[in-house]
Amino acid sequence: METISENACFGGVQGVYRHASDATGCDMTFGLFLPAEAKEGPVPVLWYLSGLTCTHENAMTKAGAQAHAAEQGLALVFPDTSPRGDDVANDDAFDLGQGAGFYVNATRDPWAKHYQMWDYVTEELPRILTANFAVDEERQAITGHSMGGHGALTAAMRLPGRFRSVSAFSPICHPSRSDWGRKQFTAYLGEDRDAWARHDATLLMEAEGFDGPMLIDTGTKDQFLDLLMPEALAAAALKRRQQATIRMQPGYDHSYFFVSSFMADHVDFHAEALWA
Amino acid sequence: METISENACFGGVQGVYRHASDATGCDMTFGLFLPAEAKEGPVPVLWYLSGLTCTHENAMTKAGAQAHAAEQGLALVFPDTSPRGDDVANDDAFDLGQGAGFYVNATRDPWAKHYQMWDYVTEELPRILTANFAVDEERQAITGHSMGGHGALTAAMRLPGRFRSVSAFSPICHPSRSDWGRKQFTAYLGEDRDAWARHDATLLMEAEGFDGPMLIDTGTKDQFLDLLMPEALAAAALKRRQQATIRMQPGYDHSYFFVSSFMADHVDFHAEALWA
Repeated sequence: METISENACFGGVQGVYRHASDATGCDMTFGLFLPAEAKEGPVPVLWYLSGLTCTHENAMTKAGAQAHAAEQGLALVFPDTSPRGDDVANDDAFDLGQGAGFYVNATRDPWAKHYQMWDYVTEELPRILTANFAVDEERQAITGHSMGGHGALTAAMRLPGRFRSVSAFSPICHPSRSDWGRKQFTAYLGEDRDAWARHDATLLMEAEGFDGPMLIDTGTKDQFLDLLMPEALAAAALKRRQQATIRMQPGYDHSYFFVSSFMADHVDFHAEALWA
Repeated sequence: METISENACFGGVQGVYRHASDATGCDMTFGLFLPAEAKEGPVPVLWYLSGLTCTHENAMTKAGAQAHAAEQGLALVFPDTSPRGDDVANDDAFDLGQGAGFYVNATRDPWAKHYQMWDYVTEELPRILTANFAVDEERQAITGHSMGGHGALTAAMRLPGRFRSVSAFSPICHPSRSDWGRKQFTAYLGEDRDAWARHDATLLMEAEGFDGPMLIDTGTKDQFLDLLMPEALAAAALKRRQQATIRMQPGYDHSYFFVSSFMADHVDFHAEALWA
């Protein structure tokens, strides 16, 4: 594993690391914030999955999460959103291919060779983190933004016991029924509707739910609200009596200005679960 | 004036605006954060001047200042660092020309035509702000990073009564004696050493000082420390008994990870002066 950079940050270290990935068959880069407490031993970790067009870097530099993670003694991990490289399949659209992995294991060509983001984020990268850094695999939580909110919600529901809490900022909630989902699932997964259902937060909520607290924030002025469909997830959650806080924040849009505005709430929410 | 974007942010609005500038003879873009309190009437304003290679956008998205400004009821203004455009003189080096205005009025060709950043930041943009937004010209403070720290310190000392407080993150402190200064002053100002002295924080500290509180943070692992020369400013400040807090922060470098780590301290420092 190669250290790209390490910067002192809120008493801890914001690092960027690159490694060859077995899951994706290419080099992968991720950001990791370790608070000062990590010098003494493993600390709880909050995963942050990013949205369309993002790399590991966007949230790391724009979400303002480190301040709050440092206060709470949490690590933050910022994975990339897709495989990368000249020999990795891509598409001219911003919402397919590189930067748009949708946190699934692709089964269709030309995507299947490298687009194994589910395995990367839920299996390989966790192993790498716990093997190389002072993060506590027994205390993990997950959040994300937009496509990353979709990833966070689906990972939390499909891996019972893995994450103590889940939250999301303006998540894609019902991709099977949205143009942010149908197009990508068709490309990556073909017409296998069972596979689609395993990556649809609303369908997973109907079928499984999440055994822990859930927090979801979306802005009332989100320009992509029709694509996100938080109303579908909310309906499913309430119907199954899921423990959840679902908020529509007045005036906010889809940007990192929204994410950063509520980051303290989300980090504190996860800290409460992680330190319980 | 054209509104480029307005995003809800920590209960207020983060806007980006573009206008034709008389001072620089080209369109200029700036960021302005207005807290919720600005709906009720003019609020105090903290200027943030950015460093080499930056536009209005870097600090606006990476410094995490809005959270603290919102808590304190302060506006934040993020000017650009130079004139911009295809017909504006430039240089291949990152530290001269576009992105590197050094907050001076250039007197030499080819720079003089557009590089009038001193007038832009200290005269034209203040007029535009108070004419168009709920900012209180009687309550202003100023900060900045690197080249912008140089701009903040020199503006504060050369405009007595304008700013109630001044701070800086890893500022260029003695440009007359540094390769971050001599090259640019020679290009923009020629060999007029009196003009250089009016833009050198250490020389201004020796000659004038600042009538108010001053806070300066620099990282012990700043990779540009030899170019910044904070020791020269510190010596001048202490010699003249200047009210000041000058800190070397252990382990931090020159990046926005450093700036964001101490932004709360700086905003709170200015708020104390602005609300006094």
